[in-house]
Amino acid sequence: MEQKTKISAEDGKQDMVITREFELPVDLLFRAYVDPEIVEQWMGTKVLKLESKKHGSYQFETTDPRGGKLGFHGVIHEFGPNKKITRTFEMEGAPFGVQLEFLQFERLTDDTSSLRIRVIYESAAQRDQMLKIGMPQGINMAHNRLQTVANKYK
Amino acid sequence: MEQKTKISAEDGKQDMVITREFELPVDLLFRAYVDPEIVEQWMGTKVLKLESKKHGSYQFETTDPRGGKLGFHGVIHEFGPNKKITRTFEMEGAPFGVQLEFLQFERLTDDTSSLRIRVIYESAAQRDQMLKIGMPQGINMAHNRLQTVANKYK
Repeated sequence: MEQKTKISAEDGKQDMVITREFELPVDLLFRAYVDPEIVEQWMGTKVLKLESKKHGSYQFETTDPRGGKLGFHGVIHEFGPNKKITRTFEMEGAPFGVQLEFLQFERLTDDTSSLRIRVIYESAAQRDQMLKIGMPQGINMAHNRLQTVANKYK
Repeated sequence: MEQKTKISAEDGKQDMVITREFELPVDLLFRAYVDPEIVEQWMGTKVLKLESKKHGSYQFETTDPRGGKLGFHGVIHEFGPNKKITRTFEMEGAPFGVQLEFLQFERLTDDTSSLRIRVIYESAAQRDQMLKIGMPQGINMAHNRLQTVANKYK
């Protein structure tokens, strides 16, 4: 089955672009990235901190199937409600470095919207490694959950 | 005259590496990046905010020769005293985008230390533009001032 979340990654470059259209009003899609209650449900992580504002920061934690803790954190460089979030992202203890992410939210119709995430990695090798370990499938599944969870908040 | 601050930028890549050795103990070199009083003197900017800690942020402002205000800001992703700072950087109103910077401080001897800054740009074109407008000369001059200013704090 074709994945709804598309990833484009040019050979030899160190960035990728992730795009997805949602059956959600743009303000609800945006809320799915800033409301801890919604974030926890679709990301499957505990939100320890989520300061959704310019110069804010966030800290998430998830429990792996063996009970280990995995941490994620970053800082928010720019924040434009219903429009954009520019932030750093790091998976703690993982060899993927620090990523710089540009999230763009766009209204398509009253009930639909699109999300475009450009991710810049520290190197092309790190980006390629993320692609290899199944990140495209993972993010598509997460976005499917986002759609389902956010439906309840309509 | 040869510049003391070296810049290495591989063709077609979107990052650059800036290196410099200073006649300063590593803790004083580090202070030159976190102590507002020292920062203001060598950068020539007003420090509006400088939260030197993990998930902190900063805001600088400078006045151009015609009296206009230029703003710079960013967020601090990682902070390791006397060792490293990982942060974003943006010159407001300039077409250079958001940069991700990795600063590494290293002790060489009791009285000397080195700084290595890796800067990742949004694109190779933006990086090349920075090189073209004289950024290598600018940062070399700024680092010369850093050396002179920090000498007073020995």
